[in-house]
Amino acid sequence: MTIGKTLWVIPEGYIPPDSEERKGSRFVSHEAACLLNANDRDAQVAITLYFVEREPVGPYRVRLPARRTLHLRFNDLEDPERVPRDTPYSSVIESDVPIVVQHTRLDSRKEALGLLSTIAWSAS
Amino acid sequence: MTIGKTLWVIPEGYIPPDSEERKGSRFVSHEAACLLNANDRDAQVAITLYFVEREPVGPYRVRLPARRTLHLRFNDLEDPERVPRDTPYSSVIESDVPIVVQHTRLDSRKEALGLLSTIAWSAS
Amino acid sequence: MTIGKTLWVIPEGYIPPDSEERKGSRFVSHEAACLLNANDRDAQVAITLYFVEREPVGPYRVRLPARRTLHLRFNDLEDPERVPRDTPYSSVIESDVPIVVQHTRLDSRKEALGLLSTIAWSAS
Amino acid sequence: MTIGKTLWVIPEGYIPPDSEERKGSRFVSHEAACLLNANDRDAQVAITLYFVEREPVGPYRVRLPARRTLHLRFNDLEDPERVPRDTPYSSVIESDVPIVVQHTRLDSRKEALGLLSTIAWSAS
Repeated sequence: MTIGKTLWVIPEGYIPPDSEERKGSRFVSHEAACLLNANDRDAQVAITLYFVEREPVGPYRVRLPARRTLHLRFNDLEDPERVPRDTPYSSVIESDVPIVVQHTRLDSRKEALGLLSTIAWSAS
Repeated sequence: MTIGKTLWVIPEGYIPPDSEERKGSRFVSHEAACLLNANDRDAQVAITLYFVEREPVGPYRVRLPARRTLHLRFNDLEDPERVPRDTPYSSVIESDVPIVVQHTRLDSRKEALGLLSTIAWSAS
Repeated sequence: MTIGKTLWVIPEGYIPPDSEERKGSRFVSHEAACLLNANDRDAQVAITLYFVEREPVGPYRVRLPARRTLHLRFNDLEDPERVPRDTPYSSVIESDVPIVVQHTRLDSRKEALGLLSTIAWSAS
Repeated sequence: MTIGKTLWVIPEGYIPPDSEERKGSRFVSHEAACLLNANDRDAQVAITLYFVEREPVGPYRVRLPARRTLHLRFNDLEDPERVPRDTPYSSVIESDVPIVVQHTRLDSRKEALGLLSTIAWSAS
């Protein structure tokens, strides 16, 4: 039995503009996709970002070993280009091995913690 | 392969009454549907709003180009009528091309940020 | 076409103990199930609550008219008995007409707003 | 009819490092899986945790009686080993009887409450 799906979608994406200021803090604002590969084969993951007013950018390539999780911060993606701040985007995540994806944002622009999370969408 | 579904539902909808006060701020309270059209054809989207004590209102019509995302704020919908504030509603989102929809609310009525999000519901 | 499902589950349920104190305020803590009946027949809804250490309680009966939404607060359920405060529970929501259900909690015990939401679970 | 599924996945998992400090408070930070067994047979539940840089740990075994809910805090799991703090993980939850699972985090590291929740993922 393999656990998961090979195509996932996160329509909501946004990195606050002042995320960098407090770098090094555990409370830095971030937008994350948590990926689990519960299977016994390493996964090659390709992420494509969609924007409001220009063509998609990608693929961003990530390797996810067998039986491992990855809490991937969109803030850290640099290749083929840095993810723009203060800009709405969506992401499509494709993997050659089934995985499961959850979307989480920590927004620490104010004193309080803003937290959101949802399992990403996958075709059933 | 087409990504997504043509019918989506967000049962929870509510725009706080004092959302307008801080307009212009990145922190203005808002209720949003994030829509992704990852396919190669433009989508015509029709939104219908349901209320507690009166008949549904709509359709609100939105065009979502191929390979684009839209972070649609219900606050901004004006035609056929402005979305009432401080009033519970639900929305049904139909598209002639498959899309994926995520619901997000930022509630900034207090000093702290209230954030919620979920992938909308679609029949599988 | 009918929109929705006839059986929904919300595993997480909890009403904070001091929810009553600020009654009358828009910020009162609450645990809600948002129900949409987008179809053309009235729905009879039956809610059963499950607990950690005793038998289930219910059904709580709610009528949801055709083409209407209901933002039901568990705080307000009184029959067959008031929902206990400061007590974990789960809910199973059955309807004779397909509906869509979303779970939302506003926790206002502290100065900041805690907000969570997810589409409830339904068998596909 | 049985309600639920026998395999659930929560990709996002994280227990803040200072969760212990305020133990005894209702506001202690926690990471929870809310499990509902709405069926008439007791369930044997096995949880496996996945990490970024080492092999999975488990199973953690939990018994969930018929017609009962359990709001399980990952903070409390001790056997086969305590769940590490300040460390990303994912969980796979297997049950011999169908159940429904929802993921919730309360982050109280700051004065405000951070809350997130989502129905866990299950194959359809």
